[in-house]
Amino acid sequence: MSKKEIPYKIYLEENEMPTSWYNLRADMKNKPAPLLNAKTLEPMGYEDLRPVFCDELIRQELDDTTAYFPIPDEIRNFYKMYRPSPLVRAYCLEEKLQTPAKIYYKFEGNNTSGSHKLNSAIAQAYYAKNQGLKGVTTETGAGQWGTALSMACAYLGLDCKVFMVKVSYEQKPFRREIMRTYGASVTPSPSETTKVGREILERHPGTTGSLGCAISEAVETATNLDGYRYVLGSVLNQVMLHQSVIGLETKAALDKYGIVPDVIIGCAGGGSNLGGLIAPFMGEKLRGERDYRFIAVEPASCPSFTRGKFAYDYCDTGMVCPLAKMHTLGSNFIPSSNHAGGLRYHGMNPILSQLYHDGLMEAVAVEQTSVFEAAQMFAKVEGILPAPESSHAIRVAIDEAMKCKETGEEKTIVFGLTGTGYFDMVAYQKFNDGLMQDYVPTEEDLQRGFDGLPSVPGHEC
Amino acid sequence: MSKKEIPYKIYLEENEMPTSWYNLRADMKNKPAPLLNAKTLEPMGYEDLRPVFCDELIRQELDDTTAYFPIPDEIRNFYKMYRPSPLVRAYCLEEKLQTPAKIYYKFEGNNTSGSHKLNSAIAQAYYAKNQGLKGVTTETGAGQWGTALSMACAYLGLDCKVFMVKVSYEQKPFRREIMRTYGASVTPSPSETTKVGREILERHPGTTGSLGCAISEAVETATNLDGYRYVLGSVLNQVMLHQSVIGLETKAALDKYGIVPDVIIGCAGGGSNLGGLIAPFMGEKLRGERDYRFIAVEPASCPSFTRGKFAYDYCDTGMVCPLAKMHTLGSNFIPSSNHAGGLRYHGMNPILSQLYHDGLMEAVAVEQTSVFEAAQMFAKVEGILPAPESSHAIRVAIDEAMKCKETGEEKTIVFGLTGTGYFDMVAYQKFNDGLMQDYVPTEEDLQRGFDGLPSVPGHEC
Repeated sequence: MSKKEIPYKIYLEENEMPTSWYNLRADMKNKPAPLLNAKTLEPMGYEDLRPVFCDELIRQELDDTTAYFPIPDEIRNFYKMYRPSPLVRAYCLEEKLQTPAKIYYKFEGNNTSGSHKLNSAIAQAYYAKNQGLKGVTTETGAGQWGTALSMACAYLGLDCKVFMVKVSYEQKPFRREIMRTYGASVTPSPSETTKVGREILERHPGTTGSLGCAISEAVETATNLDGYRYVLGSVLNQVMLHQSVIGLETKAALDKYGIVPDVIIGCAGGGSNLGGLIAPFMGEKLRGERDYRFIAVEPASCPSFTRGKFAYDYCDTGMVCPLAKMHTLGSNFIPSSNHAGGLRYHGMNPILSQLYHDGLMEAVAVEQTSVFEAAQMFAKVEGILPAPESSHAIRVAIDEAMKCKETGEEKTIVFGLTGTGYFDMVAYQKFNDGLMQDYVPTEEDLQRGFDGLPSVPGHEC
Repeated sequence: MSKKEIPYKIYLEENEMPTSWYNLRADMKNKPAPLLNAKTLEPMGYEDLRPVFCDELIRQELDDTTAYFPIPDEIRNFYKMYRPSPLVRAYCLEEKLQTPAKIYYKFEGNNTSGSHKLNSAIAQAYYAKNQGLKGVTTETGAGQWGTALSMACAYLGLDCKVFMVKVSYEQKPFRREIMRTYGASVTPSPSETTKVGREILERHPGTTGSLGCAISEAVETATNLDGYRYVLGSVLNQVMLHQSVIGLETKAALDKYGIVPDVIIGCAGGGSNLGGLIAPFMGEKLRGERDYRFIAVEPASCPSFTRGKFAYDYCDTGMVCPLAKMHTLGSNFIPSSNHAGGLRYHGMNPILSQLYHDGLMEAVAVEQTSVFEAAQMFAKVEGILPAPESSHAIRVAIDEAMKCKETGEEKTIVFGLTGTGYFDMVAYQKFNDGLMQDYVPTEEDLQRGFDGLPSVPGHEC
């Protein structure tokens, strides 16, 4: 098929949209390790998790054999309001780079949450509503997840309580206002409304909060309120399941035009986007049907894959969540405050961690300034101002395309453009003013994080 | 065709996108009056306008007989990066309202400028580049136009100098940073860099600026710099020509599914979106082929159509621009600072003014609080957080749909959703906090504006 016949944007028809989510675990030989009770170190089952999570979501979390979960009609109808998302041929970027590579990106930013987070938010809110719950609680850092969940809850008429890391609450008032416009209550964390919040405030009166602390507050609130459960926007396997809609649409769009990617690239914080994007392709690789290169891109300031350990670890600061076996820097690891945007989580989704451990996926860490250079170039030629998170993938897509220029290879590169940077202009301003700095943790910084890892017999790292 | 067969979002294929812009004036019996030299009151011709505007754009501005202008390939390729924009069936809004009406909206917000402004920005930048110019100057208020022009100039490698109304420059730093990210220089207006700016600063040292003043500074800068011209994002007929792409796509999408609208609704500030949206439909009406209702929606605080005069007036405060015959509140009219977002221009595009004067179009003025109520309802059910400007159209679309509920009529309503509100969260915050106020100018307020109208023999109002 000639270059001209492939449109700038490939949109699927509504009847070509996925009708099921794909559960990559079903095709994995080495399954991700189970969640463990943080106190007893026993694997956690359905009943153990019910006080915290919605019933159906626990079933999805624990099921590592069912390959496809049908997407309920109500969720598919919601998806139709902003999906299918376009798979864009980056003709202008290719021309700018003068590369023989063909570059595509799956753009998930064309919705008010500004990112792919909405794909899982509507699913989680739906199952909560279906269970007859009154509301859900969650945490948010940069604000994408909180915005997405607020939108989903407003649509379904569900109450939504968001604990927003205090520093973001103060520095990102616009994110906060979007959530309020959608009817969510937004509480800066740590707060006086929870026991764990009060304890942290007593110990660290001036603290500006952390994601780990906000998680602990949200979990405590959900378990104390009648008719509430806690929901989470990344890291969990259920989230990766819902996000598989990204990869399934990408694959359907590529198949429609007979395009086979060589390399698939995604940014990685907790792993929800990367896992969703690569899922069906990784499935083919696991089943021996076709080989692909997968590249996870993480910030050099929070390098869970490239410098972390594969070990059981706490998911939150308050240690109220189960232990998960994952690539982690340790729940004590504090990413540099200098780092803009998300991708600051200490751990990584267990499925992706297992795949990386098994050598099925590559990972690279990139520095912040080079990420924003890529973001600006992309914005100028492709017209979309990307989120800092997404720009990690842009950076490596450009690097791979430049390698093709050297070798003359006409590789097909697909990357995930997870969202837009409209609420990240403080970071762009720093970049525009030449004030952006890079930060790479020292071995000592890392060791402090590793020192906090729990000891789980049989799973020493 | 049954309800279910019409998708949530109708996307045209790339090969169904318009190849020409449509010039509504060609089908008008009563042509809009010519631009006049503000000093001599003589009609301005091609040569008169060349010091200020790009050559090809003057040709487009003055041509009221050619029905179609082919869209150059370079512009069509740029359009393909964010167009065709979706025509969305508002199923969820219909359900919420329990109306028998069928509601569609043409959504122009899915690009980084956040609005339809990009459609004309790329055209104007293209013709400037094609003429061998170095750069362009412009003004921006709320920031959509400045952002759009910065994006277009970055794409084409053209310098872009934006004069941003000082109050916006200070209160909307994020808009400013997007423009800077795209490489534009952004100067708060009034500034010390122009004669007109220095004069205004001397007379009003504490002024926070105005659109009219920023226009004057941008025009002065363009005429003083070698290889620069001035460009404008609304009001002019050339802008309406470029924006006809909105209406042409809308019509093609409706035709594809055999849908015939009864009412077409657009918000109106300078008229670029409304004019573009209705153009091909109004053409049918003018040619006697089919009848439609058209409703222009303006803010009650700046009611150019509903309470203005149809008269020749200045386009800017500094009176450096030509006179245009239009519906106007007078260039001295100061819209309430309380009003959020755009739609604050004292005048109106001359084509739309003539059509309204000839009774071919209706207009309504709506108050701010009711606009934000509509915006919030829309955001919750349709998932998109709308721009305050666009929400004027939402308000009246909902009102029309509710009338259908009373009468039982299954009317088809189409409205223009011009953009997103991601940079308008200060206004949303006011609304969320219950601090938003309505404002309607008194007869005395209006008279002050009318007192400043120039006297043009034969065109007394």
